[in-house]
Amino acid sequence: MNFASDNTAGVAPQIMAALARANEGFALGYGNDDVTRRVERKFCDLFERDVAVFLVPTGTGANALALAHVTPPWGAVLCHQNAHIAVDECGAPEFFGGGIKLVELPGDNGKLTADTLKARLGNKASWGPPHHVTPAAVSISQASEAGTIYRVAEIRALAELAHAHGATLHMDGARFGNALARLNVSAADMTWKAGVDVLSFGATKGGAMGAEAVIFFDPERADGMSARRKRGGALLSKHRFIAAQMEAFLDGDLWLRLARHANAMADRLGDGLAQAGFTPVWPVEANEVFAALPAALCDKLQAAGAMFYRWDADASGRVIVRLVTSFQTTAEEVERFVALAKAG
Amino acid sequence: MNFASDNTAGVAPQIMAALARANEGFALGYGNDDVTRRVERKFCDLFERDVAVFLVPTGTGANALALAHVTPPWGAVLCHQNAHIAVDECGAPEFFGGGIKLVELPGDNGKLTADTLKARLGNKASWGPPHHVTPAAVSISQASEAGTIYRVAEIRALAELAHAHGATLHMDGARFGNALARLNVSAADMTWKAGVDVLSFGATKGGAMGAEAVIFFDPERADGMSARRKRGGALLSKHRFIAAQMEAFLDGDLWLRLARHANAMADRLGDGLAQAGFTPVWPVEANEVFAALPAALCDKLQAAGAMFYRWDADASGRVIVRLVTSFQTTAEEVERFVALAKAG
Amino acid sequence: MNFASDNTAGVAPQIMAALARANEGFALGYGNDDVTRRVERKFCDLFERDVAVFLVPTGTGANALALAHVTPPWGAVLCHQNAHIAVDECGAPEFFGGGIKLVELPGDNGKLTADTLKARLGNKASWGPPHHVTPAAVSISQASEAGTIYRVAEIRALAELAHAHGATLHMDGARFGNALARLNVSAADMTWKAGVDVLSFGATKGGAMGAEAVIFFDPERADGMSARRKRGGALLSKHRFIAAQMEAFLDGDLWLRLARHANAMADRLGDGLAQAGFTPVWPVEANEVFAALPAALCDKLQAAGAMFYRWDADASGRVIVRLVTSFQTTAEEVERFVALAKAG
Amino acid sequence: MNFASDNTAGVAPQIMAALARANEGFALGYGNDDVTRRVERKFCDLFERDVAVFLVPTGTGANALALAHVTPPWGAVLCHQNAHIAVDECGAPEFFGGGIKLVELPGDNGKLTADTLKARLGNKASWGPPHHVTPAAVSISQASEAGTIYRVAEIRALAELAHAHGATLHMDGARFGNALARLNVSAADMTWKAGVDVLSFGATKGGAMGAEAVIFFDPERADGMSARRKRGGALLSKHRFIAAQMEAFLDGDLWLRLARHANAMADRLGDGLAQAGFTPVWPVEANEVFAALPAALCDKLQAAGAMFYRWDADASGRVIVRLVTSFQTTAEEVERFVALAKAG
Repeated sequence: MNFASDNTAGVAPQIMAALARANEGFALGYGNDDVTRRVERKFCDLFERDVAVFLVPTGTGANALALAHVTPPWGAVLCHQNAHIAVDECGAPEFFGGGIKLVELPGDNGKLTADTLKARLGNKASWGPPHHVTPAAVSISQASEAGTIYRVAEIRALAELAHAHGATLHMDGARFGNALARLNVSAADMTWKAGVDVLSFGATKGGAMGAEAVIFFDPERADGMSARRKRGGALLSKHRFIAAQMEAFLDGDLWLRLARHANAMADRLGDGLAQAGFTPVWPVEANEVFAALPAALCDKLQAAGAMFYRWDADASGRVIVRLVTSFQTTAEEVERFVALAKAG
Repeated sequence: MNFASDNTAGVAPQIMAALARANEGFALGYGNDDVTRRVERKFCDLFERDVAVFLVPTGTGANALALAHVTPPWGAVLCHQNAHIAVDECGAPEFFGGGIKLVELPGDNGKLTADTLKARLGNKASWGPPHHVTPAAVSISQASEAGTIYRVAEIRALAELAHAHGATLHMDGARFGNALARLNVSAADMTWKAGVDVLSFGATKGGAMGAEAVIFFDPERADGMSARRKRGGALLSKHRFIAAQMEAFLDGDLWLRLARHANAMADRLGDGLAQAGFTPVWPVEANEVFAALPAALCDKLQAAGAMFYRWDADASGRVIVRLVTSFQTTAEEVERFVALAKAG
Repeated sequence: MNFASDNTAGVAPQIMAALARANEGFALGYGNDDVTRRVERKFCDLFERDVAVFLVPTGTGANALALAHVTPPWGAVLCHQNAHIAVDECGAPEFFGGGIKLVELPGDNGKLTADTLKARLGNKASWGPPHHVTPAAVSISQASEAGTIYRVAEIRALAELAHAHGATLHMDGARFGNALARLNVSAADMTWKAGVDVLSFGATKGGAMGAEAVIFFDPERADGMSARRKRGGALLSKHRFIAAQMEAFLDGDLWLRLARHANAMADRLGDGLAQAGFTPVWPVEANEVFAALPAALCDKLQAAGAMFYRWDADASGRVIVRLVTSFQTTAEEVERFVALAKAG
Repeated sequence: MNFASDNTAGVAPQIMAALARANEGFALGYGNDDVTRRVERKFCDLFERDVAVFLVPTGTGANALALAHVTPPWGAVLCHQNAHIAVDECGAPEFFGGGIKLVELPGDNGKLTADTLKARLGNKASWGPPHHVTPAAVSISQASEAGTIYRVAEIRALAELAHAHGATLHMDGARFGNALARLNVSAADMTWKAGVDVLSFGATKGGAMGAEAVIFFDPERADGMSARRKRGGALLSKHRFIAAQMEAFLDGDLWLRLARHANAMADRLGDGLAQAGFTPVWPVEANEVFAALPAALCDKLQAAGAMFYRWDADASGRVIVRLVTSFQTTAEEVERFVALAKAG
């Protein structure tokens, strides 16, 4: 019953197999290898256009490098106040960006709304040189930290606002697969066709060992990124192994199959908890379930071996727990957890 | 005949096996796992003292994070003019250090000498606030970029100079194993007992997939490094896998056995070239051989499938080539290369 | 009727005279002159203890250098959401601090309260490595951007909270004189005796040409600041002239006399507006008056030559204007403005 | 006999008078004043084209802001090894540039030569991503730290090389007036017509209190500089006073008259020393004289009240002293110094 994080899962067997295959013979380092070339083509196919691809070993690195690349040091990145970049990356975007500022906005269900963004961007007195920072990027997480997802129309509305103010739209896709698996659209639809300019495409949480990609939908905007990644310590020398992970992840839509399983487990968990009287506090749209449980029940569940984080407290003093499923989660685990919850 | 880099080699089978073992079940992310604890203990055992250990995926990241941690932004890092940190990391130390300055010094055989360092540190008019940067660190590469190694007494002399001027001694140990395998001393002897304060311990070139460690010999000096690593994008989420690589690398002295093989191949290559009339331009002390070859011979070797970099040109117009061996290099490859060289 | 800013005022005649006196003969640059030594002693006298003093030409520079010096790059500076450092310095603290994060908190009357600070600091799950930034400094503005001032007990309460969490208390004293002139306490009482660790002491708004001081109450904490100031471009070469400004400002309590005049003009303006039916929206405690005026009245006042900024809008659609007085403001200007306001 | 630095001089009386005039009445801050507008026009007239002008209080700030603006963080600035930016600014360019790298080149008489630059830029293996920094700017000092000046043809040759490699040509003109006064050319000839892209135009050493200007000859390249200056702490609030200094400096060619005087005093000093047997070690072309004196003579001169820096030692053990003249230097001082030197 490990619901602590999708990071607690291991590596999908297909990806382990790909690593073993990549280990045959010699290959030039730093991305000058065949696997890397194939992965680049795969991303172009996936997104139905030429894209520039930079593989990096961590999601924090992907986000920070991407944001630094599209934001001058005096720029602001507008994001949800609970965004991973704002809360969980120890200031990486600020560091990589040379002192950029994150402007954190509220929003129900972990999502930024066009109305909130519009109001903030429209407050012209608070923007612009010499005294104020300049809006340079809007960053959204798909899926969000609350396990919810943006619909294409929502993304488009945010993109239009960002672009109208000269800002770039960045998508933190650490759980991109979980989001896409839920929507009946293409990867292109959910990104550049809706106005996303740069994407952190995550594979690690989805089943890789440590592989993320920064994708620029306009390859010209990637100019200089090769140097930025290297000096950021994020260019792997034996690059074929990160490429092999990503290749296997994308191959035959493995990533979407893994994501659908994780999502299905989250649905099952959410439904079960609802039946137990603990309706999730936010819509279950990806692979995360947030539920308000009595503290005693939390203790009991953890005593029984369940692993999860206590996220927050609600107004009535109950604990809001975060339950994350992964490609490795089994229906048995879910059922056992639900049964314990029902028993109260 | 791949002598392009030790990065072109793959991953040692023992390390691949360790990755497979680490892939069983769930484990908390970000280093909160058992394998990471074991690796930390292994490093303490190896160095015969308590050390603070931070695993990171790249050597550039290890060096840049280490140097940034011991150098204020107005500090200088004195190093050899051909050092990897000065030449090959695209300014990573400068970036991570908030604009530190690398002071690059000459030195035969790729090594910094105590005399040169003493003269530079002793030029007091060029140091100190408000107008000048302050010597904050001395960085040496063991083995050096020229494939040579510092003897313990040399390290000690440099350490004493550094410390006398208030500077920290950093060792870039991307090829630490190759160096140690050559000297009849312990890892402790070659580091903290000789005055090294912080070490970038490399495993990637030695046979891992992507695993380096920053080692602080005084754990108190590591205060804050956890945050620095995370915001540097260098904290892996599925951390057990980097730890598993390092554990297998250290286990049963695998790292030294792999290094001895690589070194032996370099010896054989150097001897063979010397017999062919191409005595290496620098002593062959680790796993690199530098030799001055006629351009026509270089062309012929490459046409025959040999891979290597043309490093420089000597005074007589011959090409100084760099030949790097690895744990994967075979005696057959070496012999074939030497035979071609002898044939001229 | 220039109420746009205290920056629109000129330089007090006593300070101009001091500049002329300082212009006699030669003096070593960069602070190695007699005037600088005298200013340092004056600050020690003023604060009744040894302090370290760094003169810099701008308030933004003073704040950014001070905060960068007490905050590691992964640190957070907690401040009021309307603080100058958060809103009006174009990200200078983030830049000088290597990517530090400003955590902006609400508070009535432009002031941070101990309750708000306590709640935020006490939310332990949101702080600390590796994932979260670390509270490193609390910054308060005395007087605040709303023209209000912290009482000594309020400062002490905030200092105790900051210190209890390992954070430094910084005071942005761009209008330090205006605040101190209002309280019946000493400069020491309002600063280090109440727990302030580092102060940006402003003279420019008070009547100098361009002179601010960073004051460390514990001189040992200033270690390295000399280099930081220089590489920040904030060390003046003909330093005697900034020192001369500060000396004249401090001499014979000129600064407090100038501040008292500015404050008195603000009082008069606030009282007059209250009589006209426009009671200031925040207490008038320093040299700023904020009042909600009908837009038509604003237009009329500006047409009549009054200069001021439209700060915000209140719930009923009236314009909240900011009116700043200075040492140069005359009672006649104030009366004329009030008369126009009364005429409606 | 103060030859320590042109920074030890005071402020020219015409500039003091201008400060007094600027002190009448109110003026908007931050450059929104009439004097600033006039200075901008004056610079356009001086350079015979539209230029973008940013006044800042220090030369270090001017250089660092200018270089940071034309260099990406992974860029290199090539300069003479004795350049002020490399030696005397405590790493300011590295800091403002987010970790840029200064590549320091040798050159006789303190000057960079086209041959040296060409050789370094032409070493293609050492440049470019991902591993190496990218040449982004070439910076020359006019006059140089050795008191020599570049002829227009020399500047043009360096500019052509820089531009051919995609790099910007920056001129550190802390002593721009001293250089221009010596050449029979216009300010335009010595800058943009010869290929200079961005200039740090100094007034402080020439006779101002603290006023420098960053000049972009292509105003479009200044985009974003307003924010960079502010967040660099270099935007003065009472900006009219820095503008007034610069206006008076430029007015009626005061700057050139002051520079001619300083140069003439240097000539006289150099000639006198040559007659005394101490021919200057570098050509006296601006307002600095470097001469090799016996240590005993140095002691005697300093005992007699002469102030100067001991710069270096020559091969025969004599002290190379730096003697700087300024607008304030008198013929009497020079003669007295020479007489002492002749007396030996």
